[in-house]
Amino acid sequence: MARPASLSGFPEWLPHQRIVEQHVLDALRRTFELWGLSSIETRAVEPLEQLLSKGEVEKEVYLLRRLHADPVDADDREGRQLALHFDLTVPLARYVLENAGQLQFPFRRYQIQKVWRGERPQEGRFREFTQADVDVIGNGELPFHYEVELPLVMADALAALRPIGLPAFTIQVNNRKVAEGFYRGLGLTDVGTVLRTVDKLDKIGPARVTAALVEEAGADERQAAACLALAEIRSTDASFVDRVRALGAEHPLLDEGLTELAGVVEAAAEHLPGVLVADLRIARGLDYYTGTVYETVLDGCPDLGSICSGGRYDDLASDGRNVYPGVGLSIGVTRLVSALVGRGLSVATRSVPTCVLVAVPDEKRRAECDLIARVLRRRGIPAEVAPSAAKYGRQIRHADRRGIPFVWFPGDEDGGDEVRDIRSGEQVPADAAAWAPPAEDLSPRVVAGSDLLDGDGG
Amino acid sequence: MARPASLSGFPEWLPHQRIVEQHVLDALRRTFELWGLSSIETRAVEPLEQLLSKGEVEKEVYLLRRLHADPVDADDREGRQLALHFDLTVPLARYVLENAGQLQFPFRRYQIQKVWRGERPQEGRFREFTQADVDVIGNGELPFHYEVELPLVMADALAALRPIGLPAFTIQVNNRKVAEGFYRGLGLTDVGTVLRTVDKLDKIGPARVTAALVEEAGADERQAAACLALAEIRSTDASFVDRVRALGAEHPLLDEGLTELAGVVEAAAEHLPGVLVADLRIARGLDYYTGTVYETVLDGCPDLGSICSGGRYDDLASDGRNVYPGVGLSIGVTRLVSALVGRGLSVATRSVPTCVLVAVPDEKRRAECDLIARVLRRRGIPAEVAPSAAKYGRQIRHADRRGIPFVWFPGDEDGGDEVRDIRSGEQVPADAAAWAPPAEDLSPRVVAGSDLLDGDGG
Repeated sequence: MARPASLSGFPEWLPHQRIVEQHVLDALRRTFELWGLSSIETRAVEPLEQLLSKGEVEKEVYLLRRLHADPVDADDREGRQLALHFDLTVPLARYVLENAGQLQFPFRRYQIQKVWRGERPQEGRFREFTQADVDVIGNGELPFHYEVELPLVMADALAALRPIGLPAFTIQVNNRKVAEGFYRGLGLTDVGTVLRTVDKLDKIGPARVTAALVEEAGADERQAAACLALAEIRSTDASFVDRVRALGAEHPLLDEGLTELAGVVEAAAEHLPGVLVADLRIARGLDYYTGTVYETVLDGCPDLGSICSGGRYDDLASDGRNVYPGVGLSIGVTRLVSALVGRGLSVATRSVPTCVLVAVPDEKRRAECDLIARVLRRRGIPAEVAPSAAKYGRQIRHADRRGIPFVWFPGDEDGGDEVRDIRSGEQVPADAAAWAPPAEDLSPRVVAGSDLLDGDGG
Repeated sequence: MARPASLSGFPEWLPHQRIVEQHVLDALRRTFELWGLSSIETRAVEPLEQLLSKGEVEKEVYLLRRLHADPVDADDREGRQLALHFDLTVPLARYVLENAGQLQFPFRRYQIQKVWRGERPQEGRFREFTQADVDVIGNGELPFHYEVELPLVMADALAALRPIGLPAFTIQVNNRKVAEGFYRGLGLTDVGTVLRTVDKLDKIGPARVTAALVEEAGADERQAAACLALAEIRSTDASFVDRVRALGAEHPLLDEGLTELAGVVEAAAEHLPGVLVADLRIARGLDYYTGTVYETVLDGCPDLGSICSGGRYDDLASDGRNVYPGVGLSIGVTRLVSALVGRGLSVATRSVPTCVLVAVPDEKRRAECDLIARVLRRRGIPAEVAPSAAKYGRQIRHADRRGIPFVWFPGDEDGGDEVRDIRSGEQVPADAAAWAPPAEDLSPRVVAGSDLLDGDGG
C-alpha cells in the first residue's frame, strides 16, 4: 500500500482533535436530553425519489451502486436507486411517517449523524460532515410555543461550549409571516420573488436590490424603499414591532408574524439575555419555512457563515391522511469543531485517555504490572502498561510524548510501589487500591486555548 | 409523500431501543478509554482500489457516484472511484499510513462507526451496521503481549454489559502458528488447503473433512486423523499443550504457537476466569491472521455466530519503508443490540430522557412553567413543559404514555408548587430549586429484561 493522500472535503481528526469533537458531541447530547429530546438515528441511505422531493439539492446527491449488482437482488431488480442522505430532515420526515403509530406526539427528537454532499471539492466545503439536529414534530397541529422553545435548546447547547472557547454567538430570528404580511400589506403579490431579491442584499447591495425589485417583482420606488427599510430593522427586544409599524404596511399576516416574533425575542431575552436578536434582514429559508426562521453567527467569525439554522415547517411530512408540522434547528458540528480546532480556540489537555502508565521493570514481571493497571481501572482510573521493559528513562519519555501525567513504578524487595507526576517530577509511595489522581488529571479535558496560554505564560 | 417502506438490511431503532444502543456504546467507550485507547473516526469512503486490496469482499462494496457528475470536479476528472468502507480495518491501515508522523506508537485506538456491505438482503444480514473496533498498531514491531491484552479489553467491555442482560460469553482463541506448525510437523505442506478444509468441520462433518484432506491436501489417513484430533482440543487452562504434544507432531513454529496460546489463556484465566478458552477448532481467519485469532459466542445464542472477532496481523499496513503490525478485535454492535433488544434481554426503563413534565394550568402562565423547567434543568434534571394547557388529567396521561415519572404542578394563590410521582400517585409540595428525584429516576436506565419481569411479577 503506497502512502495514501487525504480526500478533499472528507475531514478526519487526529486523536487530540477528536477529543475536542467528542467533548462537543457529549455537551450537545447532554443539553438535548435535559430538554427531554429523544435520540434517534436513521439509516444513511434513502431511496433517491425521496431525497429529490426536496428540490434544490439535486446536484449534491451521492448515488450508491453495488460493485457487482446481482439480478436476484430485490433492490436491483426493482431498479430502486439508493442514495446517501444529505441532511437529517428528509430522513426524519420519512422516519415519522414510517413509525407514526409507535411514536408519541409532539415527537421531541435529536439526531447527531454524518451527512454527505457530492459537491465539487473547494475550500471549506465538506462532502462528509456531522450535523446535530433538534426538532419537535406534531401530528396534525403543532403549537407556536415550540418556535420559542427550540432556539432556546440550541442557545443552551452552544452556551455549554463557551467554557471550551466557543466565541459569543448571536441567534438571528425572523418570521416568514412578517415578511410576507409586510410585502402583501405594501401591495406586492409576488412574495417569492421579493424574498429571493432581498436575500441578495449582502451580495449585490441596496441599489441593485431596488432595481431588481422594480424590474422583477413589480415594485415601485416607494415599495422597494420600504422593503429595504424593513431589512434594516434589528433589535434584541420587542421594539422592532413599532419600527415595522412605522413603515406603514398593514396586513393580518403581518400582525400575526409580529406577535410571534416578539414572543420569541422576549422569551429568549428572559432565558439568555443578549443571545437572540430579531433581524429582519434574515431571508434565507424564508421561502420554504412557514413561520419563524433562525440563523446563528459566531462573533468574530463572519467567514464561517451560519453554524446553526432552522425554522418552522407547516408540512414537514404528510402521508395523505395526516400532516406533520415541525420546527427545528441544525448545528453544523464539523464546521464548528473545525473552527474550534483549526483556530486553536479549544484544546485537549492531552491526546490519550490514559492517566497512568505502569512502568515494566522486567518482562518477567509484566503480569504484576497488568494487575496494578487492572486495580486502577476497576477504580475508574484509565491505565495502560508500558510497551516494553526499557530503561525507566525511556518509559518516562514514552509517557511524556503521549501526555500521560503519571508513571507507576512497581515495588520490589527494596520497597513498595511509587507513582511519579512526570510534570513536576514529584514521586511518592502509592497503593493501587487507594491512590487517586487529582480530579482534573483523571481524563483529558477540553479547555479554551486562551486558558492554556494563560496557564503557560503566567 | 406516501407512507414509506423500511429497507431490508438497514435497521433503525425506535427511541426506547435506541436508549439500549446508546447504553451499549457508552459502556464500550468507557471500557476502551479505561484501557488507554484513543478514539478516532475515519471518513466513510475510501478509494475503491484501496478497499479491493483486501480480497474476498469485492462483491459487497457499495460504489458512490454523484447524481450530476461534473467534468470540472477533480475526482470525476481523474476517474477516482470512491466506495463506502465495509470494515474499520482497511480505513485504520490507511489512517496510520497517512498520519504516521503525527501518531505515537504503539498506537492504541478504538473506533466505533457504521460500515456498509452491499449484500443481497436476507434474514439477519445487515447492509448497514455499527462496529466497535480496538487495535494496537506497532511501527516496525509489535510485542506479543498485545495479543494477550486486546482480548481482555473486549472481555471487560462485554462483561460491562452483563448487568443489562447480555448472556454469558466465551472468547475462543486459537493461534495460526499452532495450526501451521502442527500441520508442518505432520509433514503436510499445503497449509492453506488444510486450514480451509478443517474450517468446514461444522458444516460437512469429520468423514467428509477426512476425505477432503486426503484428496485435496495430500494427507494420509493418519495425518487426517491427527488434524481432526487437534480440532477436538479445547481447554480453559494450559492443559491443551500436553494434549497437542500427545498427538506427536513436532515443529519450531508449533512450539512458539503453543507458548503464545498458553500465555493468552493463562493471563485471561487470572483476569476474568472462565471467559476465555483455547479452542483449536477455530479456523476462521487463520488464513489471513498471522498469530492469535479470536471469536466470541454468547451462551444460548449459537445462531448469532461470533459477536466479537479478530486477531494478529504482521502486516496491517506498509508504505514500502515501514511495516505496521497490528492486533485487534471488532464487536458487531448492531448484531449485539439487535439480539439484546429483539430477544427482550435488555429494556429501557422509559422511552424518553424526560424526568419531569411541568404541567401548564393556563397558556397565559406558560412562561412561569418554562422557568420551573429551566431551574430543574440547571440542576441536571431533564424536564419539559406540557404541550398544551389541557385538563390536568390529560396532561398526566401524556406523561404516562411517554413514561415520564413525575408531573410538576405550578402553584397559585391557593398554594405552592407540588410534584406527583404518577406511578404511585403520591403528590408532595416541592420547590424547583431544591427538589430532586430518586437517583434511579433521573434518567432512563437500561436493565436486564429478566430483572424487569422479577420486579413486575413480585
